[in-house]
Amino acid sequence: MEKVKIVIAGPRGRMGKEAVNLVLGTEAYELAAVVDRKFEGMKVGELDGFPTSNALVYTDFERCLQEVEPDVLIDLTTPEVGKFHTKTALKYKVRPVVGTTGFSDEDLAELEQLCAEQETGCIIAPNFAVGAVLMMKFSQMAAKYFNDVEIIELHHDQKLDAPSGTAMKTAQMISDVREAKKQGHQDEKETLQGARGADYEGMHIHSVRLPGLIAHQQVLFGADGQTLTIRHDSYNRSSFMSGVKLAVDTVMKMNDFVYGLENIIE
Amino acid sequence: MEKVKIVIAGPRGRMGKEAVNLVLGTEAYELAAVVDRKFEGMKVGELDGFPTSNALVYTDFERCLQEVEPDVLIDLTTPEVGKFHTKTALKYKVRPVVGTTGFSDEDLAELEQLCAEQETGCIIAPNFAVGAVLMMKFSQMAAKYFNDVEIIELHHDQKLDAPSGTAMKTAQMISDVREAKKQGHQDEKETLQGARGADYEGMHIHSVRLPGLIAHQQVLFGADGQTLTIRHDSYNRSSFMSGVKLAVDTVMKMNDFVYGLENIIE
Amino acid sequence: MEKVKIVIAGPRGRMGKEAVNLVLGTEAYELAAVVDRKFEGMKVGELDGFPTSNALVYTDFERCLQEVEPDVLIDLTTPEVGKFHTKTALKYKVRPVVGTTGFSDEDLAELEQLCAEQETGCIIAPNFAVGAVLMMKFSQMAAKYFNDVEIIELHHDQKLDAPSGTAMKTAQMISDVREAKKQGHQDEKETLQGARGADYEGMHIHSVRLPGLIAHQQVLFGADGQTLTIRHDSYNRSSFMSGVKLAVDTVMKMNDFVYGLENIIE
Amino acid sequence: MEKVKIVIAGPRGRMGKEAVNLVLGTEAYELAAVVDRKFEGMKVGELDGFPTSNALVYTDFERCLQEVEPDVLIDLTTPEVGKFHTKTALKYKVRPVVGTTGFSDEDLAELEQLCAEQETGCIIAPNFAVGAVLMMKFSQMAAKYFNDVEIIELHHDQKLDAPSGTAMKTAQMISDVREAKKQGHQDEKETLQGARGADYEGMHIHSVRLPGLIAHQQVLFGADGQTLTIRHDSYNRSSFMSGVKLAVDTVMKMNDFVYGLENIIE
Repeated sequence: MEKVKIVIAGPRGRMGKEAVNLVLGTEAYELAAVVDRKFEGMKVGELDGFPTSNALVYTDFERCLQEVEPDVLIDLTTPEVGKFHTKTALKYKVRPVVGTTGFSDEDLAELEQLCAEQETGCIIAPNFAVGAVLMMKFSQMAAKYFNDVEIIELHHDQKLDAPSGTAMKTAQMISDVREAKKQGHQDEKETLQGARGADYEGMHIHSVRLPGLIAHQQVLFGADGQTLTIRHDSYNRSSFMSGVKLAVDTVMKMNDFVYGLENIIE
Repeated sequence: MEKVKIVIAGPRGRMGKEAVNLVLGTEAYELAAVVDRKFEGMKVGELDGFPTSNALVYTDFERCLQEVEPDVLIDLTTPEVGKFHTKTALKYKVRPVVGTTGFSDEDLAELEQLCAEQETGCIIAPNFAVGAVLMMKFSQMAAKYFNDVEIIELHHDQKLDAPSGTAMKTAQMISDVREAKKQGHQDEKETLQGARGADYEGMHIHSVRLPGLIAHQQVLFGADGQTLTIRHDSYNRSSFMSGVKLAVDTVMKMNDFVYGLENIIE
Repeated sequence: MEKVKIVIAGPRGRMGKEAVNLVLGTEAYELAAVVDRKFEGMKVGELDGFPTSNALVYTDFERCLQEVEPDVLIDLTTPEVGKFHTKTALKYKVRPVVGTTGFSDEDLAELEQLCAEQETGCIIAPNFAVGAVLMMKFSQMAAKYFNDVEIIELHHDQKLDAPSGTAMKTAQMISDVREAKKQGHQDEKETLQGARGADYEGMHIHSVRLPGLIAHQQVLFGADGQTLTIRHDSYNRSSFMSGVKLAVDTVMKMNDFVYGLENIIE
Repeated sequence: MEKVKIVIAGPRGRMGKEAVNLVLGTEAYELAAVVDRKFEGMKVGELDGFPTSNALVYTDFERCLQEVEPDVLIDLTTPEVGKFHTKTALKYKVRPVVGTTGFSDEDLAELEQLCAEQETGCIIAPNFAVGAVLMMKFSQMAAKYFNDVEIIELHHDQKLDAPSGTAMKTAQMISDVREAKKQGHQDEKETLQGARGADYEGMHIHSVRLPGLIAHQQVLFGADGQTLTIRHDSYNRSSFMSGVKLAVDTVMKMNDFVYGLENIIE
């Protein structure tokens, strides 16, 4: 079987480094080149902290595509650069797998259109952690059958915002299918303010912050005599890599546009 | 909206009693009659421990169907009686929802055939706990993406068999889709025999037995830097009732045969 | 070994019934009599729903003590009746084990005095669930070493107050020993109000309410690279009985006054 | 207040590096010197990967003690070197805090004797994770009241041995106080061999191994209608540092010998 030729944009970021390791460590993949703002013409193996690899560093993205003719672009850059890369890649019928967030609805519509015209697959995924995506998808599925649900998310105490973005996304996905309900006893009262957590369309969300914790979430459904719990624990950034791999393998078989890993999971 | 007319067979068993309460307590349902081995002609409300209800007790199942003309049969009897009831109900185009286990493959094939001929829906469900069914279904879905998984099931210490039937069913469903793998370090060794649990096609199953526990199971998936946990806690028998309700509502819209609640859950 | 002769006051309440079963089912105990508002002269075994027992029912507490001369009184009545019973028992040098709450500080001081005068042991325990008491005790011990802690308590959705009494008691016990600290990031902010839960002297408490749940609490400590979790799950009222037994066995060896099961646990 | 003058032996190991950071980052401590096999006369800040510090590197341990006159030695070397360092430190009335394992009963007896003669405190701790030590201590305490217990330990799948050393230590500590009991139903049977885990004096131990996991253990007690769970999650090596700090602060107030952090925790 021929190897999938891959270009990685943004190789020196934290996720970029993991992606380089993923591609180099996967039998079926070939690291064709990386695209960076600097280090034109160097080899990846010569960059600080990278393993041996003769793949070249390009600073000119379009020239890279022309010379290397990759199958897939893995883009882990910034929103602005990511948009430019994605459109350019589609122009060359290179399939983009994009981990940057910040695409507007207009951007997404434009990219969908471009994919259709070019008959080229493209996956944009704000969250590559397959486990987290499954947790959200399963929670949405369960909410059709259990409309009493509370979300507990737990993070290290350096996190500023509560609830977490993942908790908010989960609550939105649940409320898309859940029969509306104000949960808890109708006369319940807080003797200490805030005890019942945040209220999102009648569901309650609780944010725990402690040193030692990393990134965890559990979604708890209750019904007659039973509870169902779906929990994701993320211990480190390498958890994104199975999602990147899934996206690369999937995009190779697609000719259209997908936003969100949950839509390529069956 | 017209109420769904329901006959319950086996009303005095533990699940039967719950089912009577469910039907009496649901606005959209009407308890048309019950079928028992005894108490011909009495009212349900006159049976020991039952709430007020004028529905009649029949000992002759076929006559019950003829006189009452129900929409749905909820059968919570024994395997032998359940088979007879199910076939008879289909003959009268009454939709069966059956909670008894012990149907052979031949029985199931015959029932499927009968449903097709009569164009009448029928649901046979060995497990009515929606939460447990969702746990198994989600575990199977997750196993496509994470092929490292261990099952921990926890029950009261009066349980004789280990692993539990639900754990075995879960393992089978997972192994139907999971890429085969011998899990753990290839050189791992037990310094105390049994520490790594039971081996089911390379997956490990652990059975905890303690007084105080009721019926619990968690399925734990691990991958690069993350774990995904799906857990069901069953606290009492009332947990079956949401499944019975789901089956009744679903069978009213069906004209074919379904085995297993997981196949009517989307 | 001689059996411990026990009188139970309040035998027909939910805890009273469990206590009767406990005493009848324990080899080392003898049910000497029960004290009730009604049924003078009947046998316990003749009361509705009670197992066979020839122990007599008394309505006059003092006469019961005089005639039966028990070692221990288990009192599961109301606060007012409980106070009278406790004082009377001490007068007769019968050791009280009391599960009623609502004693004032004055009451407790008076009882302590009475125990000293009579040189008779007495245990008053607002919570007989040994597991819950251990959870609180361990939490207090852990708080000396980890001053970052959050409490998550989970109950059925018919509960009116949040946080639960056990959560409040736990927080108080922790704050008695914990170095004061405002937890979480100093600049943290709630994008949905209440997400961070209730604040008790800088600690956060979260109250989950769902159908299906019974009574559960977990206390979560976090520090550098680790978390410690102490969790109690209470599934039914029988969980109080190991605490009653512990109290009976302990009070037989005591000649003074103890308030709270945590003070007889080493 | 005067700072505690500390010498660290073995600064370039994984725990040694953490210890250097701990001492440099703690207001009340002063890093007086480090002892290494190499780099005599260099400054700590000149070693690869270390933060700025003018503390000197010594290769001669005895000369280091003579010139630096520290209060405390933190020893994170090998068993052989650790024994020599500990004895030498006591000779100079420097208080040792030792993280190396492998001391024989004779070694421990000799050190205890030496501490008594020198009237100098010394703490030897095979496990510095305070959370793990508390888990074991609490488990032992709980086992006095609940004699049904199972241990589930969960580690990454590169671990060779099952059960883990911490699980074995926990089981031993529990069995020291637990009333002997063969747990589970007396007629229970495994339909898949190993399901009920390893048997340690009637208690069951289960070892889970999955990629993604780090080092986790939960001890689960069950009784009448309740369960009590004590769980420790260790996410990274920094979890040892609160234990080292606790040991340093405690050893400064001691004049005798202690083996095991559990014995300085109240």
